[in-house]
Amino acid sequence: MDPSIAPAIKRLLATQRIASLGTLHEGEPHVSMVPFALLPRGPDFVIHVSALAAHTGDMLANPKVSLLVIAIESEGVPPQAVARITVQGEALRIPHEAAIYPEAREAYLRRFPDSAQMFELSDFSLFAIRARTCRFVGGFAQARSLTADGLATILAG
Amino acid sequence: MDPSIAPAIKRLLATQRIASLGTLHEGEPHVSMVPFALLPRGPDFVIHVSALAAHTGDMLANPKVSLLVIAIESEGVPPQAVARITVQGEALRIPHEAAIYPEAREAYLRRFPDSAQMFELSDFSLFAIRARTCRFVGGFAQARSLTADGLATILAG
Repeated sequence: MDPSIAPAIKRLLATQRIASLGTLHEGEPHVSMVPFALLPRGPDFVIHVSALAAHTGDMLANPKVSLLVIAIESEGVPPQAVARITVQGEALRIPHEAAIYPEAREAYLRRFPDSAQMFELSDFSLFAIRARTCRFVGGFAQARSLTADGLATILAG
Repeated sequence: MDPSIAPAIKRLLATQRIASLGTLHEGEPHVSMVPFALLPRGPDFVIHVSALAAHTGDMLANPKVSLLVIAIESEGVPPQAVARITVQGEALRIPHEAAIYPEAREAYLRRFPDSAQMFELSDFSLFAIRARTCRFVGGFAQARSLTADGLATILAG
């Protein structure tokens, strides 16, 4: 991996906290909005979703997901050149009794402190998203593929 | 359709010009960033994509797509309550000779005037995205489903 892209990826994932989640819904792609937090010691991302939402059923039926994080558009930057990262990976529910649950909950609440009361609702669950491959586009002609290990190194760094 | 949501949807699609496009990539969901313009007289949306991009091959292989547009996060609004719309629909390439091509090109260039030179590149194509169903979330407990006709009425209004 080209080490020069690490700061740009870290900045993108640190400054944006809303992602677009692609799931497979009855055989079709379906994209929905999800707030996300990072799990620097793995597995990469954590989201908190309602059993009432379509994406939750989709992930339980098929864990393959795609997560896109886009930088805010800034003046003078053509929209085609806006920084973004797409992560292809698997989403797995984190049961309350899982060893990683407390850490995942803490990471989520650190980023979204106002969500504490949603953890009291029985229909909400944490899901971990583990990257398999990533594609980062930093601007025009600045596309790079990353392995799961490459992303993990950046998140932990 | 509840007419009170029309202004919010129009505002969202007028102020945001970047969407998350979900395609089916080798059987998996794949989400990528696409600038989009509106085609108020139908079929709803137009994007301009490179043959080198994965989403273009995906759409040609399977036209079923999902398009998500999210409002910018604003202070005081919890991220879970940020306005967004997901459109489930079909993406079809617009050949140069199609009757709709000039109008689609003009709509795209009106929104992205700096993209004119990309229309000179032979590997770029316009695709029209026609909505089949939509889901608009305006905030907490403000989710509404729309039919394709409902969205078309809003875009034309």
